Amino acid sequence: MGPSAVLRALAGRHRVVDAPTGITQQHSVRDALRIGARSSMHRALALLAEGRVDAVVSAGNTGALMALSRRLLPMLPGIERPAIVKALEGRDGHRCRLLDVGANLECTEERLHQFAVMGATLANAVDETSKPRVGLLNVGTEHGKGPAQVRRAAALLQADASLHFVGFVEGTELFDGKADVVVMDGFAGNVALKATEGAAAMAERLLRREIGGGAAGWLFRKRLRRLAAAYNPQSYNGASFLGLSGVVVKSHGGADRNGFQQAVAQALLEVEGGVVRKMGARFGARERPA
Amino acid sequence: MGPSAVLRALAGRHRVVDAPTGITQQHSVRDALRIGARSSMHRALALLAEGRVDAVVSAGNTGALMALSRRLLPMLPGIERPAIVKALEGRDGHRCRLLDVGANLECTEERLHQFAVMGATLANAVDETSKPRVGLLNVGTEHGKGPAQVRRAAALLQADASLHFVGFVEGTELFDGKADVVVMDGFAGNVALKATEGAAAMAERLLRREIGGGAAGWLFRKRLRRLAAAYNPQSYNGASFLGLSGVVVKSHGGADRNGFQQAVAQALLEVEGGVVRKMGARFGARERPA
Repeated sequence: MGPSAVLRALAGRHRVVDAPTGITQQHSVRDALRIGARSSMHRALALLAEGRVDAVVSAGNTGALMALSRRLLPMLPGIERPAIVKALEGRDGHRCRLLDVGANLECTEERLHQFAVMGATLANAVDETSKPRVGLLNVGTEHGKGPAQVRRAAALLQADASLHFVGFVEGTELFDGKADVVVMDGFAGNVALKATEGAAAMAERLLRREIGGGAAGWLFRKRLRRLAAAYNPQSYNGASFLGLSGVVVKSHGGADRNGFQQAVAQALLEVEGGVVRKMGARFGARERPA
Repeated sequence: MGPSAVLRALAGRHRVVDAPTGITQQHSVRDALRIGARSSMHRALALLAEGRVDAVVSAGNTGALMALSRRLLPMLPGIERPAIVKALEGRDGHRCRLLDVGANLECTEERLHQFAVMGATLANAVDETSKPRVGLLNVGTEHGKGPAQVRRAAALLQADASLHFVGFVEGTELFDGKADVVVMDGFAGNVALKATEGAAAMAERLLRREIGGGAAGWLFRKRLRRLAAAYNPQSYNGASFLGLSGVVVKSHGGADRNGFQQAVAQALLEVEGGVVRKMGARFGARERPA
């Protein structure tokens, strides 16, 4: 059953749980924690913690969603703070997952290694890629390039036999299908993702101006709509919080119906793929003494 | 006289200085330093240091160009290492200068402040913008967001009355005309620039596939060529090394004739705008006791 069929099926049998208030984009994390159980976001996450729902999808305040997720859902062993993972569409529809894209701004090499394991586990569970190729974002691909913690992370990834480490990946290569998972600190990930979004929007603006009118313009506008649907960052909408004992997916705040459906589909894939169970097994195993 | 007229004029009266060897992309920085004065890159920079040429433009090995520039050209007072600055085309042809885009991977807040002053001086000299708007790259625009050194840099930029600081800028906003200069460490800058380049190339690939054949395809391909010329990162080709006592511009290695001309034009603008003199006055003044 594909995502849209699932949604159609759901539409007829959804159950509404009421909450007296909501958290807006203007609320601070402190506000969100203060509002607490009265907000719809808190209620949804509490239902997830109680096992009464399988996943939470929200297009709301990211900081609040992160803070409430951490308050309500236990973390997997050895993980201090969730990572946010987001897929980019590359050449021939290849899906490249980036993490972290904003939750952990500064990262040690151990944290980057953890992201690699989490990303590979996700790709393995959801895409059924048996050995996902893992890369590390850097300013060049040559050995010895980059900041000290990135070089140290490369050594850790190289030494981990459970990972298929393909080396450094540059910003230009995120779309080349070189890796299935690319690891980076949350500052660089946020910059990469947002610069990409900005460049795509810029290309679309220039294109609309260039298309102009006339019969060719009319014909082309039809094709452009198809293209925008394919390239639109929303077509892979849905950033997942990894490291929590539950599936939480953040949709882009400006997502349309199609975009939000993609975020729900992402959550369904993670539930069906048993991502949380596999992640727990992986990190539980790592915690056990050798 | 526009750039192409300048080049046409130059073509008839250029003088060739011979060098027995060259530095390739395969050479390491150490190789470049060892080859020394026998390479064309070294000779060109030596001519600049001697005041016999006004600028050096190279499409060669970036690391070698940086190392040889530092060896042959004195740095401006108080600057340890050059920054690399590159312009992006944004909405309505607005030019947004990013620095650093790769020379200084980790930066203190003082270094970020230095980039702000250098970028503003460049924009002022070349674009004749009297008070260039300076932004700081971050993961969000709210006060208090981001890594510690970025927040501390914001305080320094805010306190510097010589700068028009417009606050934090996100990756999506690099194309929005929000700032004339955006400051960041070289790792984030390199990622932003390359992710943008990757996204633009990806958009072009999808577009070519989508255009298809037929009369509309034919008509549109003509328009696409115009668009590619406008959007192509090469149309603003030319990354300048700032902080040296001479104009050095690095062209993209894969630049075509038009791209290389842009890099030469960038060098001419910097020479004519007196960038090095203005930068020296700015940093010399900063070095003098109050």
